Amino acid sequence: MNKVKCTIQYDGANFSGFQIQPRGRTIQGEIERALKKMHKGSYVRIHPSGRTDKGVHAVGQVIHFETPLHLDVHGWKQALNSMLPKDIHVKEITYAKSTFHCRYDAIEKEYRYIVDRSKEPNVFRQNYVFHFPYELHIDAIEEACLLLQGKHDFTSFSSAKDTSKGSKVRTLYEVSCREDAEELTFSFRGDGYLYNMVRIMVGTLLDIGQGRRDAADIKDLFAQKDRTLASATAPAQGLYLWGVTYPKDTI
Amino acid sequence: MNKVKCTIQYDGANFSGFQIQPRGRTIQGEIERALKKMHKGSYVRIHPSGRTDKGVHAVGQVIHFETPLHLDVHGWKQALNSMLPKDIHVKEITYAKSTFHCRYDAIEKEYRYIVDRSKEPNVFRQNYVFHFPYELHIDAIEEACLLLQGKHDFTSFSSAKDTSKGSKVRTLYEVSCREDAEELTFSFRGDGYLYNMVRIMVGTLLDIGQGRRDAADIKDLFAQKDRTLASATAPAQGLYLWGVTYPKDTI
Repeated sequence: MNKVKCTIQYDGANFSGFQIQPRGRTIQGEIERALKKMHKGSYVRIHPSGRTDKGVHAVGQVIHFETPLHLDVHGWKQALNSMLPKDIHVKEITYAKSTFHCRYDAIEKEYRYIVDRSKEPNVFRQNYVFHFPYELHIDAIEEACLLLQGKHDFTSFSSAKDTSKGSKVRTLYEVSCREDAEELTFSFRGDGYLYNMVRIMVGTLLDIGQGRRDAADIKDLFAQKDRTLASATAPAQGLYLWGVTYPKDTI
Repeated sequence: MNKVKCTIQYDGANFSGFQIQPRGRTIQGEIERALKKMHKGSYVRIHPSGRTDKGVHAVGQVIHFETPLHLDVHGWKQALNSMLPKDIHVKEITYAKSTFHCRYDAIEKEYRYIVDRSKEPNVFRQNYVFHFPYELHIDAIEEACLLLQGKHDFTSFSSAKDTSKGSKVRTLYEVSCREDAEELTFSFRGDGYLYNMVRIMVGTLLDIGQGRRDAADIKDLFAQKDRTLASATAPAQGLYLWGVTYPKDTI
């Protein structure tokens, strides 16, 4: 069997999320359907670097799967793209070591979150940004971004639905925000994320930007370990899984 | 009764076109539904400057309707936007003369068509551009654009489904194409358009750009008056009704 690593993009707008479900169109469902066709009806299970929720997009999601097929990487890419719907696109395919696992081997993941600050909503961007036409103090947001960086217990920034039983300690290597015309883009680079963690951080950063709470709250929230004390979860449509990094020797 | 003129934007991706139909979500259906709510259940018919097809977008479509209501223009805009789905947005509302008709009074309409020339399709733009990753001779396209300008019989550039019985003569005031990074945007400003006329012109311009036919064909096509001699109709998702112009004294 060959282990295949696949970097994909998807527009999350018309999906019920990554993970296959009894009802609703899912990214996993569409990719596994395409692979089944390529494997003459045999089921091929795919594994993502992490699931994404309904409405969340990916610019550089990574998946892996095992296959008996021996296509060259160009052939793989063409065959898969020709069988996938237009809102999923395979960017790159490579063969990986048999031990490679795209979830356990990931050393860094980047998420971005795009906020549209223009006064009026843009109908063409409604599924791709969070429209938030309110005044923001960018200095306060930048201060809070720096406080989020580093190794912390992110319990306050994880959904009550997070059922992972392990440690809630994660390390964010870099948290930044960048203004470009009327868009504000947050970038988070870290070793891992709890459920809804990015969206809760963004909700909290926007509250800080509006002056509804202080940047220094971030420190308190790390200590309090209580989801109810952080701000509301920002909506899904602004969120992008931007990229996943692996050590060179695992691929 | 008051005559209301309304400039709207819509993302055509999830509509079966402008005109109301027994099945399928339409722009007219959604706006009339919102107006019906505002009028306590009374039906209010809207009239567009022209229909748009399934998948076609609008940046500046204009509609009008009659109403007994006397809201100020800000109130109208807020009320309507609060009742419309997110893929339709009212940009501007004004009261117009009782004789105003947004179709018959229009003196100019602009359409744009966006072609994405990047090698790989962008999943986030699939509903908003025509992905066409082939080499193009822009000089030939520009030459053909100039030949399209002016007053001509556009029979060769209108769908066989065009059932209008009047003249097929239209005047294009300006036809241009602009390159910006990997996007090529065509702009058409004219006094009116036949059914599918912009999309057939774009299909023909792209054939000319690929060297599959000569720019001089445009002149022949005007003379031949035969749809089958022009090129294929370019797909709907790249097309935008960009704006409609009225003489000042009609509004």
